[in-house]
Amino acid sequence: MDHLSNYAKFNEIDTFIFDCDGVLWNVESQVINHANEFVKMLLAAGKRVFLITNNSARTRRHLLEKSHKLGFDVVEENIVSTAWLTAAYFKDVLNHKGKIYLLGGEGLEKEFQMKGLDYIGPGEASYGDIAAGHAGYLSLKLDPEVNAVVVGFDPYINYTKNVLAMSYLNDPSCLFVATNTDLVFPSDGPIKIPGTGSIVSFIAASAGREPTVVGKPSSSPKEILEAVHGKFDCERTMMVGDRLDTDILFGRNCGFKTLLVLTGAHGIADVEERAKKEETKSMVPDFYIESVGHMRDLLKN
Amino acid sequence: MDHLSNYAKFNEIDTFIFDCDGVLWNVESQVINHANEFVKMLLAAGKRVFLITNNSARTRRHLLEKSHKLGFDVVEENIVSTAWLTAAYFKDVLNHKGKIYLLGGEGLEKEFQMKGLDYIGPGEASYGDIAAGHAGYLSLKLDPEVNAVVVGFDPYINYTKNVLAMSYLNDPSCLFVATNTDLVFPSDGPIKIPGTGSIVSFIAASAGREPTVVGKPSSSPKEILEAVHGKFDCERTMMVGDRLDTDILFGRNCGFKTLLVLTGAHGIADVEERAKKEETKSMVPDFYIESVGHMRDLLKN
Repeated sequence: MDHLSNYAKFNEIDTFIFDCDGVLWNVESQVINHANEFVKMLLAAGKRVFLITNNSARTRRHLLEKSHKLGFDVVEENIVSTAWLTAAYFKDVLNHKGKIYLLGGEGLEKEFQMKGLDYIGPGEASYGDIAAGHAGYLSLKLDPEVNAVVVGFDPYINYTKNVLAMSYLNDPSCLFVATNTDLVFPSDGPIKIPGTGSIVSFIAASAGREPTVVGKPSSSPKEILEAVHGKFDCERTMMVGDRLDTDILFGRNCGFKTLLVLTGAHGIADVEERAKKEETKSMVPDFYIESVGHMRDLLKN
Repeated sequence: MDHLSNYAKFNEIDTFIFDCDGVLWNVESQVINHANEFVKMLLAAGKRVFLITNNSARTRRHLLEKSHKLGFDVVEENIVSTAWLTAAYFKDVLNHKGKIYLLGGEGLEKEFQMKGLDYIGPGEASYGDIAAGHAGYLSLKLDPEVNAVVVGFDPYINYTKNVLAMSYLNDPSCLFVATNTDLVFPSDGPIKIPGTGSIVSFIAASAGREPTVVGKPSSSPKEILEAVHGKFDCERTMMVGDRLDTDILFGRNCGFKTLLVLTGAHGIADVEERAKKEETKSMVPDFYIESVGHMRDLLKN
């Protein structure tokens, strides 16, 4: 790992992919060290820019509004959320026919609507006739048109939803897709918040199957973006992130240049620790820099 | 593995532990090949008998009533359910002080009540103020007296319950106990039913911790029974089951003699498969027999 200022070909990078939380803004939604100004510089210089988040709870439009409020001069096509990625995966990559059993919230549902996908499942679900025991679950009806199960952030996840998901997934031809597998949301204080990954574990454990994962660190975002926006020149693409196990691993999985910023989850000591072990070596970035704001001085006009 | 009829010391066995489903009765709750008569013979011969089930949804008393209906001449002390085992673990093994956050159903709750344990949590839970997003969860209150989380079969499991469980478990001194880790309930037909193990996966994934498991195949049932009923003579104890990965592994983990009956989940071919691989060799039983009923001829009066 080298400091970014030592990278002679930095100006040849033409596509920048930024993680959002801990990179462009902090958990209190405050812009980190003029990151918005740097993104403006990149766009003015004709670079391609993507803001990527594993969050599946919000639509791309919602994240665009947040970006605008924080002074990022981007359009909807610059935003890459797992809610949109998952809808694009089914529509633009798979050209999926059939119904999707969707465990997800409002953001995912709206992206599915906008892509014209056929789905059932979101929203509050009854706990079922608990007193009836197994007989209550056994009387549930499956929809014969369902041929895919999608698991995203679903605040209404419950046992009955798992009965249905597991029953659909018992057919090996039924697709199993997860938006992402982050196990926790970042939070300070005594209350901890489970991530979508824990919901995925709930379903996957029952089904005895592992899903295709759309979000980082899988390389799916690259494949889906290529289906929509055309091929990446990996040598000229840079992934900028604060987490080694999601952002940097994602960049390396895609063959992109990788840059760690020191404004979020991981620091230099974390890199050194990963570098020592064979199984975590692929989380070591090519470069590091103090913050996205510090990149401004390196960009020649 | 040998046929049980070749076991010269079979009459010296003085304690028999039977799994229930697939061993004593089938999924339709019909007695399998006079198993009830054999149990009567054992008791008449002065043997010690336990009926053990990983099911945590029912009380020991409920399972006793079912046993009586099916002609098993047993008393409450002969029944070993994970609901009762878990309550006995906290009361008779740990002599636990403090409050337990209990994710479980009616059976577990009643056993906790009967042991005089202090708990919160069971029953229907609100989905919370979903529209409030993270702020809604962050305003949840933790009970400062809680120092243990128990996960059993909870038909009301939901996301808010996981927020609380994960938050309590963030304190490393908070105990984490699961009744059992069976991933699925046996069922024919298109509807599949997730087991308690899937709920455990949901919580454990968020918490980043693995629980102490009370049920088979862990050896906890032996230790808990010993705290209540006194030591086992392992050489003279036989575990009788139909599943290699729970019943037989449990028996081997405890140092008991193990007997596979061919009336349930696994057969001879399954044993041969396990015998080939180093990591599953510990699931190979000492003996097999066609059914519990077939044991009658071997018992000398």
